[in-house]
Amino acid sequence: MKNIAILGSTGSIGENALNIIESEPDRFRVVALAARTNVEKLAAQIEKFHPKLVSVADAQKAQELRSMVKRRVRIVTGAQGAIECATHPDADIVVAAMVGAAGLPPTHAAVCAGKQVALANKETLVIAGGIVMQEARRSKAVIIPVDSEHSAVFQALRGEKKKSVRRLILTASGGPFLGMSSVQMSKVTVERALKHPNWSMGPKISIDSATMMNKGLEVIEARWLFNMPPSMIEVVVHPQSIVHSMVEFHDSSVIAQMGPPDMRSPISFALNYPDRLAMDIPRLDFSRLMTLTFEPPDLTRFPCLALAYQATQAGPSAPAVLSAANEVAVEAFLNRKIGFLDIPRMVEKTLNESPNFPVNTIADVLAVDHWARARARELIGRR
Amino acid sequence: MKNIAILGSTGSIGENALNIIESEPDRFRVVALAARTNVEKLAAQIEKFHPKLVSVADAQKAQELRSMVKRRVRIVTGAQGAIECATHPDADIVVAAMVGAAGLPPTHAAVCAGKQVALANKETLVIAGGIVMQEARRSKAVIIPVDSEHSAVFQALRGEKKKSVRRLILTASGGPFLGMSSVQMSKVTVERALKHPNWSMGPKISIDSATMMNKGLEVIEARWLFNMPPSMIEVVVHPQSIVHSMVEFHDSSVIAQMGPPDMRSPISFALNYPDRLAMDIPRLDFSRLMTLTFEPPDLTRFPCLALAYQATQAGPSAPAVLSAANEVAVEAFLNRKIGFLDIPRMVEKTLNESPNFPVNTIADVLAVDHWARARARELIGRR
Repeated sequence: MKNIAILGSTGSIGENALNIIESEPDRFRVVALAARTNVEKLAAQIEKFHPKLVSVADAQKAQELRSMVKRRVRIVTGAQGAIECATHPDADIVVAAMVGAAGLPPTHAAVCAGKQVALANKETLVIAGGIVMQEARRSKAVIIPVDSEHSAVFQALRGEKKKSVRRLILTASGGPFLGMSSVQMSKVTVERALKHPNWSMGPKISIDSATMMNKGLEVIEARWLFNMPPSMIEVVVHPQSIVHSMVEFHDSSVIAQMGPPDMRSPISFALNYPDRLAMDIPRLDFSRLMTLTFEPPDLTRFPCLALAYQATQAGPSAPAVLSAANEVAVEAFLNRKIGFLDIPRMVEKTLNESPNFPVNTIADVLAVDHWARARARELIGRR
Repeated sequence: MKNIAILGSTGSIGENALNIIESEPDRFRVVALAARTNVEKLAAQIEKFHPKLVSVADAQKAQELRSMVKRRVRIVTGAQGAIECATHPDADIVVAAMVGAAGLPPTHAAVCAGKQVALANKETLVIAGGIVMQEARRSKAVIIPVDSEHSAVFQALRGEKKKSVRRLILTASGGPFLGMSSVQMSKVTVERALKHPNWSMGPKISIDSATMMNKGLEVIEARWLFNMPPSMIEVVVHPQSIVHSMVEFHDSSVIAQMGPPDMRSPISFALNYPDRLAMDIPRLDFSRLMTLTFEPPDLTRFPCLALAYQATQAGPSAPAVLSAANEVAVEAFLNRKIGFLDIPRMVEKTLNESPNFPVNTIADVLAVDHWARARARELIGRR
C-alpha cells in the first residue's frame, strides 16, 4: 500500500492521478490533497478519498471548504499549508502537480523530505533545477517525471548506465503551426493557437506548445533531471506524438518509448514505479497503416526553442527569467494585448535586460521570478 | 578481458565479431575459432588473433590448414571439434554463428557448459528451443541474441519485469516483394528474390526474408528465448528496418529499439553486454526528414509466416520439420528446380505428412531434421 499526497489535486494531472488511485484501492491511499481555489471539487475529493490533510489558498477558501465537507479533516492554508501536505510524514509519493512558480516551494519541500516525487510542476526544474537536484542527491528523493517526454527518457534509461548515453532526443509535436510561415504566424488568433493537434491541455501549455517554448522548457528540465549538458539534448519534431522521446547510446542504439498520446500513461508509470500496472489505456494499433515522421525543428520560425537553449547555457538565473517572462507574455497574448510572435520578442527583451542574479536558495529563485515578471509586464505595457 | 570462442568465424557474423574484437584488444581475446571449409580465411584469422584451438570440417581440411599456418595451434575436426571449441575452458563468451542444423550440437554444448552465448545460429532455438532453454536454466548460461530483432527485444526488456509484458512486436521489412501480388510472386526470378532492400545477407536468409519465413522462424525463436507463448508475439511490417523490434507492456507503454540497419550493432551489444561500448556505427539521422511506416503482414500473400505460427503451436517436432523442409525448398528454388511460391507449398506438404516425433534430446531433433529433409526432397523430386 502506497500513501499519496497530491499537490494540485483539482487540476487535470491531479484528477487523472486520483482516477488511477481510485481504480487501485488495494495499492494506493490518499493522505493529503492540496488545491488553491476550486473548493467544490476538493470537497468532493475529500468525501471520496478521505485524506487526513488538505490545503487551500487562504482562510476564506478554508472556511468555504469547511462548510461543504461533512468528514473530519484537517484544513491548512497558504504556501505553508501546501508544504505541510508535501511533507506529510505518512506520504510515500508526492504528486507535484501545482501549476507555476507557486508549485516550487512545496515540491522542493517534498524533495528535501526524501519523498518519491511524481513531478509534473515545470518550474521546479526549469527555474530551480540546480538547487532541487542537489537536494535530491542529499535526501535520496527519487524524482519520477510525469511529463510524457521525460517519462519516456526515464523509461528508455531503465537498466542502462548513464555513461553509455550519447544523447537524449526529445520529440516535439511541433504544435498547430508546424508548417506555417512566420508571416502567417504573425497573424494567428488566440483560438487557432489553443487548438493542439494531439493533446488536450490548458491554455498556457497549449500556447507554449504552439511557440515550442514548451519544448525549450523541457530541454532545461531534462538537463537537470538526467544530469546531462544541454549539448547532449536534442529536439526532433514528430507531429504524430507517438514516440514520446528517445535515448541514443554510444553504440548508436536508440531506445524509444512509444504509445498513443494519453496523459494517464506517464502518471500511472510514476505512481506504480518500479512496477508497470495493467492500465486501461488505448494501445498502439499496428493492425492499420501507421506512419511516423521525424524532422529537425526550425529555430528561425520557432525562436522560443533557441531562447531556451541560450538561457540554460547562460547564467544560472536566466532560465527563471525566461520562464517568468514567457508566462507574462503568454498571458498578454491570451488577453489579446500582444501578437503571437511578440511572445518570443518579449521573452528575448526581458532576457537581454536581465542581470545575472545569484540563485543559491529557493527564495533567490522566486526573487528572480518576481523581477522578470515585473520587467516583462513593463516591457509589454510600454509597447 | 573477455575470452571469446567463435563458431563460424569465416561467415559474415564471425568476421564482424572479429572486427569488433580487433578494435578492442584490451577488452577481448580470441581463444577458439571454428569454421568448416574456408581454410584460407581461417589461416589468416589464426595469424591475426592467435587462438589456442581451431576446428575445421574434416581431416583433409585440417591438413590443408596446417600447411598454411606458421604458428603453433591445436587443430581439431568434425562435430566433436566444434564442440571442443564451444566448451573451451578459457572461453567466457561463445559466438554461435555456424549456419544450419550443424550449429546446434556445439551451441547446445556451450549452453550446457554455462557459457555466455552470443546466439546467431537460428536452428538452435527454432528446432530445439525447449531443450536448449531448459538446459540454460539449469546451467545458468546467459543467451544474448545476435539477430537484430531479438537483440531489440532483449534491449527493450532491460530493467523491466517479464510479468509486465503484454506482447512482443517483431518488425519485418517485408522483403523485396512486399507490395507484390501472388500472381507476380509466382513468376519472380532467383535474382530478384536475392535483392533485399535493407540488409546485405547470404542467399538462404535473403530468400527467407522474401518469403517472410525468416520472420516466422524468428517468432519461434522469440517464443523460447523470451519464454512467451506465440499468441503474445506479433509481427508488424516496417519496410524501413529502423525500428528493430518492440515490447508492449501492460500499461500500454511500448519500448522500441531503433538504429540504422547494421549487423555490427547487435553483435557489439552481445559481446559487450551488460555494457554498451562506443561503436563507430552510423547514427540515426534526425537532421533530415525520416518516415517510418508500420502495417500488418498479409498472411495470404506470405503463407510462410502463417505456417511458422502453426508449426510452433502444433507438436514439438513441427518447427524442426518446418525449418528443414524450408531449407530444402529454398535450395531447390535457388537451383531453379521450383518456383518462388512452391517454397511454402513444399513446406506445408512436408508438415502435413509429418507425424509427431518425440523430441527429448538433440539427437531426437537431428533425426526429425533428417526425416524432414528427405521427405521434402522426395516431394520436390516427385513434381
